[in-house]
Amino acid sequence: MHRRPVLEFWYEFASTYSYLAAMRIEAAAEAAGVELVWRPFLLGPIFKAQGWETTPFSLYPAKGRYMWRDMEREAARLGLPFYRPATFPQNGLLAARVALLGADRGWTPSFTRAVYTAQFGECRDIADAQVVTDILTGLGLNPEAIIAEAQGETNKLRLRRMGEEVQSRGLFGAPTFFAEDGEMFWGNDRLEQALDWAVTQGRRGEWPD
Amino acid sequence: MHRRPVLEFWYEFASTYSYLAAMRIEAAAEAAGVELVWRPFLLGPIFKAQGWETTPFSLYPAKGRYMWRDMEREAARLGLPFYRPATFPQNGLLAARVALLGADRGWTPSFTRAVYTAQFGECRDIADAQVVTDILTGLGLNPEAIIAEAQGETNKLRLRRMGEEVQSRGLFGAPTFFAEDGEMFWGNDRLEQALDWAVTQGRRGEWPD
Repeated sequence: MHRRPVLEFWYEFASTYSYLAAMRIEAAAEAAGVELVWRPFLLGPIFKAQGWETTPFSLYPAKGRYMWRDMEREAARLGLPFYRPATFPQNGLLAARVALLGADRGWTPSFTRAVYTAQFGECRDIADAQVVTDILTGLGLNPEAIIAEAQGETNKLRLRRMGEEVQSRGLFGAPTFFAEDGEMFWGNDRLEQALDWAVTQGRRGEWPD
Repeated sequence: MHRRPVLEFWYEFASTYSYLAAMRIEAAAEAAGVELVWRPFLLGPIFKAQGWETTPFSLYPAKGRYMWRDMEREAARLGLPFYRPATFPQNGLLAARVALLGADRGWTPSFTRAVYTAQFGECRDIADAQVVTDILTGLGLNPEAIIAEAQGETNKLRLRRMGEEVQSRGLFGAPTFFAEDGEMFWGNDRLEQALDWAVTQGRRGEWPD
């Protein structure tokens, strides 16, 4: 027995195509025999570094109009609900801080899917702390303790530092996938190629379990 | 017998992802039972309308670096040669004018593939009239007569007007596909969805042959 290859999955909660990837990545990774590392991050600072004050879908209206139509079609194709949020992009800061906190505790994937479903399937505003509270409660967790820790300086700083670090690795959008050798894939459309790379070329080495 | 559904294929000669689409679209359309309309156009005026003086791959270096790596991988996956041109984006104006002229004469698909192969498979500069001349000669055509007509006012104006018209239909990048009902798909990654739409939903009506 050898360990399974690893793929990092970097996602922003406000990102529509990150939603599509988040809802299907676990089944796809399981089928490919790949272990996932879930990495919530904030696109805002990365867009600012490229000179954008908001998402390119707002800056470039023709591209934005197309994105909403493409999302309708792609969500239907993947069997996922999709409603355009009343405000876009939503502020996913609190959700990202909470999701980061769950990484070492095993509940980040479930929390992440619940946040995306609330936003794009149920038209709820994920910037609202009550929405995040309801989701944590639904997962059987303690919302008050988790939100307090998520908003603490240690966790806030960790989220910021991880965003800076991944930007230095070349990330410029979301979702983004990294194989162990650093190979980067951008976009829900590249999930299959990323998993294939992780299995066939991206492994750093083989160790017995 | 009924007529086959039609898909418009809009491409820019300097566009890397248009190259991938151009080299595989004919086989894919044939398999799907779809008739193609090849539509060369110029991205420059459309980018300018969005506030970009050149390709976003030059304006946003992180995105540009990723694109070259992604093109290497995708071309290899599709079994196509790919070399990064010494200059990018290349000036595809002459090639687009010539390709437009061939639309009613049947040789646009062959000419288009030959131009892309020269640019991305053989590192030739498609802005060089000699390269275009060699390609036309290789197709058994009369380069002098064709280039003269392609550079005439009628053809130049037609290319410009077609670009303005398609921009009004929502096009913002290349490659772009339109079904008969106006449904738009952007990017080589959406070719399969575009063909599927053309067959299942995009037909304007049925007429006997």
